[in-house]
Amino acid sequence: MAVNSAAIRWLGDHLQLLDQRCLPTETLWLDICDSQQAADAIRNMVVRGAPAIGITAAYGLALEAQIMGNDASWVTLQNAVATLADSRPTAVNLFWALERLQRYAGDLQGKALAQALAEDAEAIHREDLAANQAMGEFGADLLPSGATVYTHCNTGALATGGHGTALGIIRSAWARNQLTGVFAGETRPWLQGSRLTSWELLNDGIPVTLVADSCAGQLMQQGKIQAVIVGADRITANGDTANKIGTYNLAVLAQHHNIPFIVAAPVSTLDPALPNGSHIVIEERDANEVRNVQGKSLAPEHCPVYNPAFDITPAQLITAIVTERGVVHRPDTAKINSHLAQTKES
Amino acid sequence: MAVNSAAIRWLGDHLQLLDQRCLPTETLWLDICDSQQAADAIRNMVVRGAPAIGITAAYGLALEAQIMGNDASWVTLQNAVATLADSRPTAVNLFWALERLQRYAGDLQGKALAQALAEDAEAIHREDLAANQAMGEFGADLLPSGATVYTHCNTGALATGGHGTALGIIRSAWARNQLTGVFAGETRPWLQGSRLTSWELLNDGIPVTLVADSCAGQLMQQGKIQAVIVGADRITANGDTANKIGTYNLAVLAQHHNIPFIVAAPVSTLDPALPNGSHIVIEERDANEVRNVQGKSLAPEHCPVYNPAFDITPAQLITAIVTERGVVHRPDTAKINSHLAQTKES
Repeated sequence: MAVNSAAIRWLGDHLQLLDQRCLPTETLWLDICDSQQAADAIRNMVVRGAPAIGITAAYGLALEAQIMGNDASWVTLQNAVATLADSRPTAVNLFWALERLQRYAGDLQGKALAQALAEDAEAIHREDLAANQAMGEFGADLLPSGATVYTHCNTGALATGGHGTALGIIRSAWARNQLTGVFAGETRPWLQGSRLTSWELLNDGIPVTLVADSCAGQLMQQGKIQAVIVGADRITANGDTANKIGTYNLAVLAQHHNIPFIVAAPVSTLDPALPNGSHIVIEERDANEVRNVQGKSLAPEHCPVYNPAFDITPAQLITAIVTERGVVHRPDTAKINSHLAQTKES
Repeated sequence: MAVNSAAIRWLGDHLQLLDQRCLPTETLWLDICDSQQAADAIRNMVVRGAPAIGITAAYGLALEAQIMGNDASWVTLQNAVATLADSRPTAVNLFWALERLQRYAGDLQGKALAQALAEDAEAIHREDLAANQAMGEFGADLLPSGATVYTHCNTGALATGGHGTALGIIRSAWARNQLTGVFAGETRPWLQGSRLTSWELLNDGIPVTLVADSCAGQLMQQGKIQAVIVGADRITANGDTANKIGTYNLAVLAQHHNIPFIVAAPVSTLDPALPNGSHIVIEERDANEVRNVQGKSLAPEHCPVYNPAFDITPAQLITAIVTERGVVHRPDTAKINSHLAQTKES
């Protein structure tokens, strides 16, 4: 069956991805027909956002199994699994999705395997939307009435199976008439805030004001922000959180101004295998992302650049982690463990 | 006589300014022939940096007096003074330069006035270089051996009469073999760090690494920064400092990581008439500086933007203010007063 969300369309025999490098000026859908194309789309940021990366990888593997037909098995798919796993290192949802597919269908062969992988990829896609809607309600409960919030990067429908994580909380709070407005940090170097978040919020009629990332401290100093809400790419056992570069700046600033700092992510972003953030691999990306903007040169051509895609926010700076299962206040290893042990129904 | 610095050339009967909007890709000098052209160049950021703005305004007024010839007097120059004073509101050096010219030559008339204004403008230009060289030595004394420092915006030869304020300290420390390297924040929205600071440092052979502004916290967290050094546009009686937007973020981050936060500025940037930072007018600039980069659209066309050019760092977050007269450690009103009372020779 077809499963559609804002940036991911599954058509049964191929995938379509909205090319997020071209937004908001151009709306271009790319066809993805195998695992290599899916991996390239992830690496080149046609699709980005931890949950959307997981969904794309799942569909990519399902497509590869379809192509293999009778030869498909978890063993013959190993190259495809490795190619997908190698596309981006930091977001754990990618690895989580591949492991989930193996648990669900790893013992099957041929067309039965291909069909089961597609089924589970669709389930991952649909469940992510449901998770974000639940997360939105739990997160909105944390915000005071009339709040203006600050968010970073893009954590919306474009980054997920729909609704969004941090942006899902913002959407849910807005639907409850609980929100006054949103400041979106532009999120250099890739400008997810300017290009994607402001576009999503304007499309939904939610009052957004775009600012340079450097503006966050001044806004907090002036009392204009009641909460900072961000997503996550990986959360370790103790609550340390890898997220888009600049998140750590915001967490320190929020603490200095005594403003709640809220992380929103599905349980699939929790990685209890890593005890703390020092074990997370931080991806470094191409220097030209900083030296250039959309082909325009901004700096001397050979200027050395340091361009980490993520930073680590220690759990001590996090007021609450919100998942589809509820809220972990002041996260630590014991609370995260107990949150993970909880079933969805409990 | 001719007085030249990196971005300002005085030729006696007109001024040339290096158009800093075009750097580093293009080196274009603009002729400035009267006060209106000087004011436009300041407003449109052909020239920027508090000391360079003061120098440009001084030459602009001298040119206007030359044009007036026998009719020149402080009264007939009032429109020109007002036009220059109105060009940018935050940097105090602009107002300081105009007041200094009035004290020096305000009682003269005609050609004698024009000649005296040109003389004093040249003196302001030359004295600024000397001040920065002195500041560089005082500031370098504060840095540990082998330090790597972080700087923001551009405070170099392009922003001043030469050498630079914060960048002057970096140059002096480098000349003493005291420095390992410099991280330059790109400084959105105007990208003074990418376009100007990295260009100046590369030209001098000082090892610079360009980063997105969002990267500062991570660098400090990883122990890569031993001091943050910035300039100032206005420092009030108690030490509160207006400087490029993002400076306050850096000051909070530096305090969190127990890293010295050093402000470098000539005495002409001190404004004892204002008791504290709440009295400083913060310039807001055009939304397109954030929505676009060099003509490339980055955000939805009508997206609301908040684009303050400066923020205020409270004195409590400042480890030291360095001027050409020496160092004010942990600034407060009493220490700033006593620093101002000090003569240069003492």
